[in-house]
Amino acid sequence: MSARPPFIPLVDVQMEQPGIALPINRAGIKGIKMPLLVQDRQEGSQATIADVDLAVDLPASLKGTHMSRLVEALDNFDEVLTHTSLRRLLGNIRLNLLASCAFARFSFPFLVRKAAPATGKPGRVACACVIEGKLDEHGQTLVLRTATPVMTVCPCSMAISSVGAHSQRATVSLEMGIDGLFWIEEFIEISEVSASSAVYSLLKREDEKMVTEKAFSNPMFVEDVARNVSARLLEHPRVLWFSAEVESLESIHGHNAFARIEHDKTKRN
Amino acid sequence: MSARPPFIPLVDVQMEQPGIALPINRAGIKGIKMPLLVQDRQEGSQATIADVDLAVDLPASLKGTHMSRLVEALDNFDEVLTHTSLRRLLGNIRLNLLASCAFARFSFPFLVRKAAPATGKPGRVACACVIEGKLDEHGQTLVLRTATPVMTVCPCSMAISSVGAHSQRATVSLEMGIDGLFWIEEFIEISEVSASSAVYSLLKREDEKMVTEKAFSNPMFVEDVARNVSARLLEHPRVLWFSAEVESLESIHGHNAFARIEHDKTKRN
Amino acid sequence: MSARPPFIPLVDVQMEQPGIALPINRAGIKGIKMPLLVQDRQEGSQATIADVDLAVDLPASLKGTHMSRLVEALDNFDEVLTHTSLRRLLGNIRLNLLASCAFARFSFPFLVRKAAPATGKPGRVACACVIEGKLDEHGQTLVLRTATPVMTVCPCSMAISSVGAHSQRATVSLEMGIDGLFWIEEFIEISEVSASSAVYSLLKREDEKMVTEKAFSNPMFVEDVARNVSARLLEHPRVLWFSAEVESLESIHGHNAFARIEHDKTKRN
Amino acid sequence: MSARPPFIPLVDVQMEQPGIALPINRAGIKGIKMPLLVQDRQEGSQATIADVDLAVDLPASLKGTHMSRLVEALDNFDEVLTHTSLRRLLGNIRLNLLASCAFARFSFPFLVRKAAPATGKPGRVACACVIEGKLDEHGQTLVLRTATPVMTVCPCSMAISSVGAHSQRATVSLEMGIDGLFWIEEFIEISEVSASSAVYSLLKREDEKMVTEKAFSNPMFVEDVARNVSARLLEHPRVLWFSAEVESLESIHGHNAFARIEHDKTKRN
Repeated sequence: MSARPPFIPLVDVQMEQPGIALPINRAGIKGIKMPLLVQDRQEGSQATIADVDLAVDLPASLKGTHMSRLVEALDNFDEVLTHTSLRRLLGNIRLNLLASCAFARFSFPFLVRKAAPATGKPGRVACACVIEGKLDEHGQTLVLRTATPVMTVCPCSMAISSVGAHSQRATVSLEMGIDGLFWIEEFIEISEVSASSAVYSLLKREDEKMVTEKAFSNPMFVEDVARNVSARLLEHPRVLWFSAEVESLESIHGHNAFARIEHDKTKRN
Repeated sequence: MSARPPFIPLVDVQMEQPGIALPINRAGIKGIKMPLLVQDRQEGSQATIADVDLAVDLPASLKGTHMSRLVEALDNFDEVLTHTSLRRLLGNIRLNLLASCAFARFSFPFLVRKAAPATGKPGRVACACVIEGKLDEHGQTLVLRTATPVMTVCPCSMAISSVGAHSQRATVSLEMGIDGLFWIEEFIEISEVSASSAVYSLLKREDEKMVTEKAFSNPMFVEDVARNVSARLLEHPRVLWFSAEVESLESIHGHNAFARIEHDKTKRN
Repeated sequence: MSARPPFIPLVDVQMEQPGIALPINRAGIKGIKMPLLVQDRQEGSQATIADVDLAVDLPASLKGTHMSRLVEALDNFDEVLTHTSLRRLLGNIRLNLLASCAFARFSFPFLVRKAAPATGKPGRVACACVIEGKLDEHGQTLVLRTATPVMTVCPCSMAISSVGAHSQRATVSLEMGIDGLFWIEEFIEISEVSASSAVYSLLKREDEKMVTEKAFSNPMFVEDVARNVSARLLEHPRVLWFSAEVESLESIHGHNAFARIEHDKTKRN
Repeated sequence: MSARPPFIPLVDVQMEQPGIALPINRAGIKGIKMPLLVQDRQEGSQATIADVDLAVDLPASLKGTHMSRLVEALDNFDEVLTHTSLRRLLGNIRLNLLASCAFARFSFPFLVRKAAPATGKPGRVACACVIEGKLDEHGQTLVLRTATPVMTVCPCSMAISSVGAHSQRATVSLEMGIDGLFWIEEFIEISEVSASSAVYSLLKREDEKMVTEKAFSNPMFVEDVARNVSARLLEHPRVLWFSAEVESLESIHGHNAFARIEHDKTKRN
């Protein structure tokens, strides 16, 4: 293809002086897919496919980041994603890219095994999860996001209608600063018990009856679900701060309803 | 920028012989946005923003299409989008690109004004619409797609539960070959009256009560809605063929349910 | 539908005491579509279709927000969206929902008229814009987001290859706290002049030649574009704080490259 | 939850007569996620996460499908997805739902291992794949879709510009009727060799130089890529019919360019 022999060193443009000497908060790659093992409370680990972003900061004196080294760091990562393996990955990135701060985001579907409430038949429900880590000279910070589908029954509709009440699927989206170890399943369960009902993949008639009746005995606004979740996160010893947003696909509307509570335990209120 | 004077003709690579002499069904542009006027039964026309695809066929003897002429044709199009203005646009494209077949697709949100059922308060609900036209030596064919949000109440859940029944938002997605004139609103209404209830943007308590009670007096599976819609489309004089798909965001599941009926009146069955 | 006469007051569940007395940061609606007029520097205003979120805060003592009043406030809003009309909308929401804080987000495509660089032929390029406003007892804060497509040519590829250099479409995504008046066009232009080249809808051959040559005379990493944009935003008198992210759809990779600079002028660094 | 004892049979609403006696082409579930093993030419199999649709037809005499049996069939499916295991799954669905036609669609990311062209360093590129099967009394039909990212360099821009040429990422989207066995990798390779260059995840400077130079020695319109791919699919013994669409994220435009060739070998032309 090229007449130039491969051993002649190619110029490293990234190391040049930039035209404008501004430091960059994050430079890196987005949307690279990889197979990933994540922790599973029941099975030890779960195989999934993650969409990954990796980045470092860049000082004012360098024109560009060596992005191929980020891809290399990812290709060399074959551990179960945990608090500690993530720290190793971020540590390697800091080292190999000579960066003071390294950042990684893993987005993946997490499949939760769930027995149907009456028949006990097994099924799986998918939750969208994100694990973010940042490592700098002050140590590692960890952010977990989970998006859990649930069911809500409208208390207003129930109170004013002579029959029925509108219900709908809703999503409980948590974003949390986490201190150390955690199980994704914990936060999915917190989301589910805070709503009118959990959702399931497999429901036989006996199960559908039970889910319907349970949900109608627990009518909740998105505001109620947001408060229920938040009360549990406030007490959770590993949660440093959180944003809990509940968005319901209102069945009587073409638009959604939502409620969000934010709290930072690390700040005096 | 360039030393070459602008009046020296630049080579027209598109007109060259291709390496492989295969005819191309469609070559063109995708995802260009433009302001668009579409027909509105009540107001005459409605201003929206469309996402547009334009294409032509290409004979085996030509390397490429002159895509900039497609953009020009679109920039010159300032009429309300109708059966006849679309034919003019496609005719111009055939002419300017020396093509035997011209194709256009306009995707846009269509806003339907809707009074709340009890208070009569006004509101708007958005439906996703697509109008496709194809013009060749046999004339113009027209395809309309509408995606209308509706509400379904589950008849099974209602029959087996001691209280309530799960309900959810669903989408009625129609794809139809249309003969001549049509109103988008007709097909949105057909979609809405075929479900447990229409959805609304503005509902006061009296309205919410009425919508809930109406929906619970009309429990329907996605199969029921698909059949209701199809029975109406079978009788519609302008509909040549259709696919009617109903997909419900099941409130007890993390996944959706769907039913689809396809029918082609132009074929003997 | 219902035997209950409409003048008997229906219970207002929203006004009840919640089970858990936590204040809610935001409760409201998401994803309601409406026609919207936004400011256009050349034409005065531009008609678009917006996707709108509206919300208020909710004290610990109330179970739910009256979401229908948010829809009403929006239906009554028929002004060009400006700094001042947004304040009126938010003021009405605070009043009608008895809230201390009101929040609105309008997301819409903004179409920029742009002449081709050599032939001067007119065209339009769409930018995704978001205007957010928040009004509480401390006054109104305004956030503008613009996502502008641009072109980048890779300086590394150019330096090391015997011919050519890979180029690609990139998006400059700005998020900015704005003090008072602004033109969306200003920030789109800042984004475009900071990249290897702007993009266009209509380019004849003379134009394509000019764009290619201009872009290849301005090779830039995403880091370069982020710095160029940021240098301009640092000097902009209306910008209080910003995040400038550039993401390129790398043509040699299946993933993207990005760089982000954040700066808050209201804080001492 | 319910006073009704679980052994009293619950009414089976699905088995009732529908109000409108129309047969339904497809009724089932959409968007259920599951771990899936797919065939991998090098490793035997590859673990991925699939998004699954399952459906059956429904006669005019039955009100609804037993959708929970579709979920059960999927939960019991733990084989590598092949031509023959898919037939078993569809056969079970036909049997358990008493249907004459069963349909399944699996959508999943497929990761292709790829060595960098100069350094040979390993990497992975994700392709979006869909495998669809339909089983009725006439047997099984199989449809494969692959979406492969590639690179294109514009021949027009190269011919008319004094330096460079715009390049961009493009996607080669194939939809094919397949007769029997197939490797996904075959069609990804056909897509890649038909473009200006393949894309890679990991490219060191020597590799980037080689990719750039190779791509610039193979300038291609989307029309060229569509023809190249189609010529190969026309000769492929397992491909019964195909649609080959190439869409490029034009780096000089805000919109995309595309070309599509369709061919059905089972029909006389």
